[in-house]
Amino acid sequence: MKAELEKLRGLHWDGEYLHFIEQTLLPHQEKWIMTDDWQVVVDAIRRLAIRGAPAIGVAGAFAAVLAFKKNKDDLNAWNEILEKIEHARPTAVNLSWAVGKIKQSSAGQVGDNLLNTITSQAEQIAIEDEDNCLKIAENGLEVIPPGSRALTHCNAGALVSYGIGTAVGVLRQAFEKGLLKEVYACEARPLGQGARLTMWELHRLKIPCTLLCDSAAGRLMQEGKIDLVMVGADRIAMNGDTANKIGTFNLAVLANRFSIPFYVAAPITTFDLKAKSGENIPIEYRHPEEVRKYGHYKTTEGQSRVYNPAFDITPGELITGIISENNIAYPPYNFS
Amino acid sequence: MKAELEKLRGLHWDGEYLHFIEQTLLPHQEKWIMTDDWQVVVDAIRRLAIRGAPAIGVAGAFAAVLAFKKNKDDLNAWNEILEKIEHARPTAVNLSWAVGKIKQSSAGQVGDNLLNTITSQAEQIAIEDEDNCLKIAENGLEVIPPGSRALTHCNAGALVSYGIGTAVGVLRQAFEKGLLKEVYACEARPLGQGARLTMWELHRLKIPCTLLCDSAAGRLMQEGKIDLVMVGADRIAMNGDTANKIGTFNLAVLANRFSIPFYVAAPITTFDLKAKSGENIPIEYRHPEEVRKYGHYKTTEGQSRVYNPAFDITPGELITGIISENNIAYPPYNFS
Repeated sequence: MKAELEKLRGLHWDGEYLHFIEQTLLPHQEKWIMTDDWQVVVDAIRRLAIRGAPAIGVAGAFAAVLAFKKNKDDLNAWNEILEKIEHARPTAVNLSWAVGKIKQSSAGQVGDNLLNTITSQAEQIAIEDEDNCLKIAENGLEVIPPGSRALTHCNAGALVSYGIGTAVGVLRQAFEKGLLKEVYACEARPLGQGARLTMWELHRLKIPCTLLCDSAAGRLMQEGKIDLVMVGADRIAMNGDTANKIGTFNLAVLANRFSIPFYVAAPITTFDLKAKSGENIPIEYRHPEEVRKYGHYKTTEGQSRVYNPAFDITPGELITGIISENNIAYPPYNFS
Repeated sequence: MKAELEKLRGLHWDGEYLHFIEQTLLPHQEKWIMTDDWQVVVDAIRRLAIRGAPAIGVAGAFAAVLAFKKNKDDLNAWNEILEKIEHARPTAVNLSWAVGKIKQSSAGQVGDNLLNTITSQAEQIAIEDEDNCLKIAENGLEVIPPGSRALTHCNAGALVSYGIGTAVGVLRQAFEKGLLKEVYACEARPLGQGARLTMWELHRLKIPCTLLCDSAAGRLMQEGKIDLVMVGADRIAMNGDTANKIGTFNLAVLANRFSIPFYVAAPITTFDLKAKSGENIPIEYRHPEEVRKYGHYKTTEGQSRVYNPAFDITPGELITGIISENNIAYPPYNFS
């Protein structure tokens, strides 16, 4: 799978520069950006040019390295930048997890020693993410019966990670093993990561796939076209409550009505020890223009007031299983 | 309310020409089209320039009149055109209902007599639709507690009727009576009738309103921001199963989870005596380009396969009440 992986990824560290695909332009343009400027990385995370919980963790770690290179003599300045990196986006816990790992590894060191240590740490975070994706995919095979037709939401593929991704990683592995028949991808308005990114990935992986509007998911299940739902996660609380792209909760409630299994696939870095339940997960509200427009098309009148949460919380009780690199957990969830 | 109505409508018959607002251009352009050509009307119905179950019934009736004027001497040709009008769109039953009324009234007549009769019949259908909308709005007041925050889907306002509309008509009346606090409008991808049309109407009615993506409806309810859901209908089966814009079923399932009342408002013309249940209602599947694009913006790669049902079926058991011009019916539904 490693060779295939090389053809489909959104992040690459060459030892000096972070390369990332400008996800906002996909699928219409495949533009790579190469930078040694932490601010470009943080801006990319805020703009969703780099997105997905594991990917922003990895990118945040490399941003910390890039920031240190420019601030070797001013640890206070560096620490302030680390704060900024950590808070580039609020919902995914991976950013603060990655920055925490960098801070820990830097303790008591200075200068080039510190640089070497945190560079190794960031590279380890990336490599582990790649490995974890493969392990998640292997573990997930267990829940994919032969001939499955899966529904996924938003994008939880190669683009959200340093590897093959989470939910789409499982589906990809299942397709290679001949278990998966086809994938239905919800568009994921407002920013259309399903329509733009998941379809783009699935086409390149030659996995049969069909796009639908988020509004059509209920009808799709009503028609008996779906055997399981597989999504990623931005943050998982200790009771299994899961923050993921807005619309995930809708799918979980619908799947529950039709007794369709609903799985979450995510690395351990996405679990938040400090969050007892979904109530402890901060939800990001994004700019009204994301809803007032789709790309450059104006969807409504300019003055329209907008409700635009980027995530929702799916209660653990609606999740059939949570697939990580360690295992598959089943309810009632009680992580620690 | 009649004066207000004059300011906000999408259809007008002047005795000779049918005038309609080109709904596909709203809210960016308010363009009225005036025609005495039945083919222009049928094309407008197919293109969704005229849309909404009651409105396409009324427009279909006038199309039948316009067609007769050009085919006075060839009743066979006229009957063939009536078939075309009736099948311009499959899901709403109002088209075939209206054409049926025209056919009935024409029986045994010829020439100018026939023209006068069917013109009167079409005008009566329009006037009755206007009156029915007002009665639905009055009847609906009963289910709107003071201070209500309502969620609606797609557009079931003035634009779908010859009057004030159905679901939005109820909300409008409730707002005038001081019962309704605000409206949340789901966008209704793929064609965005909520974002484009309902927001346009609500702004003009000065009703406080907020737009959301269909994907955000679950979160909105999760946050306790909704007291009731009010939608229209394209066809209602005798057991209460209701076909309405794709995404309606999602909202009904979500509302049910949160014990939020879910109402359908529709005239009796929308009820189909021949449909015992939702299984007897044909669902229209529309062109993939509706999903591959939003306006002129390309949402995905050109070759993306698409699932694009225009409607879904909400089971009667999920509907708290069905509001018509006659009364409010409650489950278990058993219409006849």
